[in-house]
Amino acid sequence: MSGAIGYDARDARSDVRGRDEQAEADAKAHQLRLTKPAGSLGVLEDLGVQLAGIAGCDPPPVPRRPAIVVAACDHGVVDEGVTPWPRDVTAQMVRNFLAGGAAISVLGREVGASVVVVDAGVATELERHPALLDVARRRVTGNIAREAALELDDARALVEAGRTLVSSLHAYGIDLVATGDMGIGNTTPSAAVIAALTGRSAASVTGRGTGIDDAQLAHKIEVVERAITRSGPPSDPMSVLAELGGGEIAVIAGVVLGAMDARIPVIVDGVISLAGTLVAVGIEPVAADFVIAGHRSVEPGATAALEHLGLRPLLDLDLRLGEGSGAALAIPLVRAAARILGEMATFDAAGVTERSEA
Amino acid sequence: MSGAIGYDARDARSDVRGRDEQAEADAKAHQLRLTKPAGSLGVLEDLGVQLAGIAGCDPPPVPRRPAIVVAACDHGVVDEGVTPWPRDVTAQMVRNFLAGGAAISVLGREVGASVVVVDAGVATELERHPALLDVARRRVTGNIAREAALELDDARALVEAGRTLVSSLHAYGIDLVATGDMGIGNTTPSAAVIAALTGRSAASVTGRGTGIDDAQLAHKIEVVERAITRSGPPSDPMSVLAELGGGEIAVIAGVVLGAMDARIPVIVDGVISLAGTLVAVGIEPVAADFVIAGHRSVEPGATAALEHLGLRPLLDLDLRLGEGSGAALAIPLVRAAARILGEMATFDAAGVTERSEA
Repeated sequence: MSGAIGYDARDARSDVRGRDEQAEADAKAHQLRLTKPAGSLGVLEDLGVQLAGIAGCDPPPVPRRPAIVVAACDHGVVDEGVTPWPRDVTAQMVRNFLAGGAAISVLGREVGASVVVVDAGVATELERHPALLDVARRRVTGNIAREAALELDDARALVEAGRTLVSSLHAYGIDLVATGDMGIGNTTPSAAVIAALTGRSAASVTGRGTGIDDAQLAHKIEVVERAITRSGPPSDPMSVLAELGGGEIAVIAGVVLGAMDARIPVIVDGVISLAGTLVAVGIEPVAADFVIAGHRSVEPGATAALEHLGLRPLLDLDLRLGEGSGAALAIPLVRAAARILGEMATFDAAGVTERSEA
Repeated sequence: MSGAIGYDARDARSDVRGRDEQAEADAKAHQLRLTKPAGSLGVLEDLGVQLAGIAGCDPPPVPRRPAIVVAACDHGVVDEGVTPWPRDVTAQMVRNFLAGGAAISVLGREVGASVVVVDAGVATELERHPALLDVARRRVTGNIAREAALELDDARALVEAGRTLVSSLHAYGIDLVATGDMGIGNTTPSAAVIAALTGRSAASVTGRGTGIDDAQLAHKIEVVERAITRSGPPSDPMSVLAELGGGEIAVIAGVVLGAMDARIPVIVDGVISLAGTLVAVGIEPVAADFVIAGHRSVEPGATAALEHLGLRPLLDLDLRLGEGSGAALAIPLVRAAARILGEMATFDAAGVTERSEA
């Protein structure tokens, strides 16, 4: 974090430790003994070192029981005409997640991850389902162009719900979490949160979401600008979340903090997840140690947030779906990075000659 | 191909068909009915369409039995001092592949792919092993700075061996192949082949391989230039392969042609595999239809070849190991792309409302 705005000490916890430096040093030295030219596995080597630091040991465990947490919410700002999709689609897609027919359902199966859906404020009352957790404090956020998205207490409660969820999942054996979102119109509050927390302009972080034309984009930027002007200079991250964010952004922030608490990796998805990550890291900077960027979304706000957080994404596939799709697709890469440290032979053990020094 | 050089009709087969246009059209239309904004899965959608075209049906089958073919060879040009690694390492690494301790062994296990190793001219005589196929015509290629790498007949035989291998693998149920290489010094002949077949300069396609300093790089470029000058203006791709290539490059070219014959996808790895792909596509342009670029290697020749072939790589992780590592890591993405078409719900079936028209 640039430290541009402070964080509220009530939300941070004094006892959190970041990644284990000794384990990281061990993993770095270990990489050099493996039967490959030093550094030749590129980003995968850095990722292996990060996983060792998160786990506190080298080699790090290979994540075998990942969960993708998909938080869903509806947004009052849809009344401003920022999206061509009707609000009903949020609830319809939640049902699609639970029925197994959505992209994230398919990708979850492919990578061996369970999908946990969180109702963080969907407009329509949803039927109960074993894979659906209802933590909503209000149905539909306030229209951020005119009012706060959430009461501050509600924002806190939603963050805490995400955090507690990861604690429960970890207790059930989940060893990696990935974040995802569903919410018609939610690239608008995400852009507003990213603008506020990175200090960038609305125009530079607002994108076309699921597909709008130039005139609609200009209007969307103007809506984000109005929201930022209304809410005033950003104070602490929790207030930014309440003023400009949404329920799914809050839950995702909580999931990132929960991964830190559980000391497991969290793979974050695109622009909505990155807005939540900025909030989490604003509340507790140490949380950044546990974050892996799954991919680079085409949304400009995603790149702004990645740069601000100093994260290099694993994938760059022009995705702009959300749901956690880009995070899910990165799971096999995280497993591969851990497994390289766990299973590759060393030069000594394999009887392979090392390069001569130049 | 730019058509800068012709191909030898004796190596092409007149009866090959490219991807099935009807299946591609079906898959494109199908993508639009799936419960996601049109185009929101980016590169994964294009890949799904390509897989449908390769298989000739939509949805395409999900590749469940992939094989990674790792071709190994030693190179006379190592005598010019182009690499800090001793030649013995090629044979040592082949033994490491077969023992399961190399990076490609670990990655193969992680993605559920078998690893088939091909001796295409390793200096040391290797012990027999069920996963090792010996197709070598000579042990160590000629030093390309002074002489042809291979006799033309040997080059043809090695290409044919790779092609026949895929035919056998396909008969055993392999539904996707990935290419990999091992050969101390082999970024030098790869750069020479890429320069000859793309018309680029030696300096623009020659890189640091497994790690050399500026002076060593300047020397390596000069060696590539000498080889290109010696061999004269490139004629047909098979002659370029024989003059400037190597055994593993020949076998990889054959694997690409074999995938075309079997009508299965072939994921190609980095700069050595891309040199082989340029040869294959030079021999039979239709082969390009079956090629998926696994990743963008840090070697500049890889980017030159990708641009020449019009391929967008799936991963960009600063890998420079070879062995097929970047191709193996892309296998889960290929599976995901096929599975999206096979398993996602449509708007109609899931009862999800489509966007309103602007």
